[in-house]
Amino acid sequence: MLEALDALMTERRIDAVLVYGSSTFGNPELCYVVGANLARGGIYVKQRMKDPVLIVSNIDSGEASKGLVKDVRTYSEYGYERLVARYGRNKAGSLLFDRILKKHRTKGRIGLYGRNDANDVLELSKRLRRLGYTIVGEPHPSVLEAAMETKTLLETDKIGNVGKKTERVVKKIIEFLKNCEIEGEYLTHEAKKVTVGIVKVLTRRYLAEENLVAPEDVIIAVGPKSADPHYPGVDSDLVMIDQPIVFDIFPEEIGGYCFDMTRTFVFGKASERIRKMYEAVREAQQITFDLIEEGRRAETLMNTVCDHFAGNGFKTIRDLVRGVKEAEKVGFVHSLGHGVGLTIGERPYLSLNSDDVLKSGNVFTVEPGLYDPEFGGVRIEDVVALTESGVTNLTSYEKTLDAEMLK
Amino acid sequence: MLEALDALMTERRIDAVLVYGSSTFGNPELCYVVGANLARGGIYVKQRMKDPVLIVSNIDSGEASKGLVKDVRTYSEYGYERLVARYGRNKAGSLLFDRILKKHRTKGRIGLYGRNDANDVLELSKRLRRLGYTIVGEPHPSVLEAAMETKTLLETDKIGNVGKKTERVVKKIIEFLKNCEIEGEYLTHEAKKVTVGIVKVLTRRYLAEENLVAPEDVIIAVGPKSADPHYPGVDSDLVMIDQPIVFDIFPEEIGGYCFDMTRTFVFGKASERIRKMYEAVREAQQITFDLIEEGRRAETLMNTVCDHFAGNGFKTIRDLVRGVKEAEKVGFVHSLGHGVGLTIGERPYLSLNSDDVLKSGNVFTVEPGLYDPEFGGVRIEDVVALTESGVTNLTSYEKTLDAEMLK
Repeated sequence: MLEALDALMTERRIDAVLVYGSSTFGNPELCYVVGANLARGGIYVKQRMKDPVLIVSNIDSGEASKGLVKDVRTYSEYGYERLVARYGRNKAGSLLFDRILKKHRTKGRIGLYGRNDANDVLELSKRLRRLGYTIVGEPHPSVLEAAMETKTLLETDKIGNVGKKTERVVKKIIEFLKNCEIEGEYLTHEAKKVTVGIVKVLTRRYLAEENLVAPEDVIIAVGPKSADPHYPGVDSDLVMIDQPIVFDIFPEEIGGYCFDMTRTFVFGKASERIRKMYEAVREAQQITFDLIEEGRRAETLMNTVCDHFAGNGFKTIRDLVRGVKEAEKVGFVHSLGHGVGLTIGERPYLSLNSDDVLKSGNVFTVEPGLYDPEFGGVRIEDVVALTESGVTNLTSYEKTLDAEMLK
Repeated sequence: MLEALDALMTERRIDAVLVYGSSTFGNPELCYVVGANLARGGIYVKQRMKDPVLIVSNIDSGEASKGLVKDVRTYSEYGYERLVARYGRNKAGSLLFDRILKKHRTKGRIGLYGRNDANDVLELSKRLRRLGYTIVGEPHPSVLEAAMETKTLLETDKIGNVGKKTERVVKKIIEFLKNCEIEGEYLTHEAKKVTVGIVKVLTRRYLAEENLVAPEDVIIAVGPKSADPHYPGVDSDLVMIDQPIVFDIFPEEIGGYCFDMTRTFVFGKASERIRKMYEAVREAQQITFDLIEEGRRAETLMNTVCDHFAGNGFKTIRDLVRGVKEAEKVGFVHSLGHGVGLTIGERPYLSLNSDDVLKSGNVFTVEPGLYDPEFGGVRIEDVVALTESGVTNLTSYEKTLDAEMLK
């Protein structure tokens, strides 16, 4: 929670937080503290125990003032244009930061945050250090990562809302596919074989109707190829019957919160091997749900699921660490989950050797999966929220391997 | 061009380029050198005059091997999992970099690149420096920015292709609007007033059908509100006749190249003021096209357009620099253009005091605009490519203020 930032700064001896970037899009840290979409980004400065200041381009000041920061100013107020004219863009950049920090009497240990090209960070920090500022790097999780890790109820609601929209999209895709014909090994629509390309275009269209976008694509992986958990499916792939199809959809609101859900279905008759994998994955998810509580170490969840899979005769990523090369491609080859918020790659990480401990406010995926290059993959992924009143599953979509059983 | 990287490194005394990040999505620098979409990102190391190495997560190795780097390895090959188990994630990260750099005998001045949280860059560079490495920041443009600034013909083709798709989308939107009815001051469809929300959903649907996404939204700004160049239009806005409507569409291929185009139309009859602004903007664009050539300073284009507007009685951003507060909101309030590639915010920048010089391989927008809070905004934006054979406009969409004149 952003409200926790002061306490986190005190705990980690950070006197000022400086979040910056050339856009809030693709910059979750800046988007988080600003609470608005700024095409040209900005510079957010917050001293410990003080209200923040946000400095933006003139043309973004209207949008910025609709956000979380009350004190919005423009670069022009600090004479940026004249600095550029006099010193050139490179030097003017650090001189602008200098003027902002001086004006707001920002001293002590200053942390920099926000997605920027690493070279830009190195150059800016070098120049600021030369000007006498103490620029510090923190070990993960930084104060901002720690703040972002615990969601407010409002944030959890927003994520849940994206979830409802995402589920409607999946429902429409499945309805389309259930209404297709079967010809030999393939689904057909209007006498043509259904391709993954067609299903992806439909998916993006349904997402559009819900005001969602999927800039990182969606995964629609059919048959043995689905054994690679990151195989996205290519447009020419055909939708086959009797084979597992992994639907992994991770859209976002424009400049807003994300969701991430996976279902695996078979149209027709699943093989015994896939059915066995599916049952083990469902059990793994339930075992995880039962373990979620405040104070539980995230790696405990991961380890318990590895134990469960190992006990059922499957390889896991732990075997890989022990040198079993085969475990790169077969069994439970990835982590159990990750936080969901303005990104789908944040804390808590439910992985081996994760140093995260579950807290009230965490929103994260639970996504066990099993993979076998000969048969394909099976993954089920929900997003859950841990609040003071317990665990809420933000995903209500049915779980069944047999597509024909779906309502 | 990536081929220029060695020469650029020599020129700037960079011995090794290290590009990293947790995903190639939202990380144009990493995407550029890798040439593939990697959900978990990777570490790219290139020493001067040597072939690069790419290290990725096991589950991304399949996708990575389809990209530009021939020598693809996995974190496991460097014992990453055991480092994490022994030292924890924070220390293991920098120790992994250490192992990679040692294994490939990487010495000298090392630059870091790729979009990462600034704190992560500060922490990693601190740890690597403690291990004895020389980590340097370069003034802009970095070697990678400079390489990315000049596109190959293949890249230009790809951008042009996104352009053709984008134009088809705009054509469909305009066709929809032209088929609407007029009731009073508004356009109506099936007896309901047409909202910007409806037009945006249609836009996203048409984008989906072209396999494009617009994660940073699209601008559909109607009437006086369009005088704010970054006002995106909200869903409840109504589509009015006799008012300027600014359509600014900047989509991207998934994990690929971008486009950026703007047209301003009036359905019905434009006011004299808007018509005068439109003519001045069209002329400004033509003046710019005529000036584009290798070796021309980018700021010359911007200054010439400011001269043109000033000569026609309009305020420009230069007046703002001279202290005319009004020029924040009235006249030509933004820059003339920016590079287009894997981002829509790269070199060359056609702005005041830009230090860019036009080069063969540049692909950039030419987007003059005029704004007046009482009447609205007018902007026309094309993407042009400067190659050895001259200037090519990658945008062929018609330019007219009167929507009814459109074919």
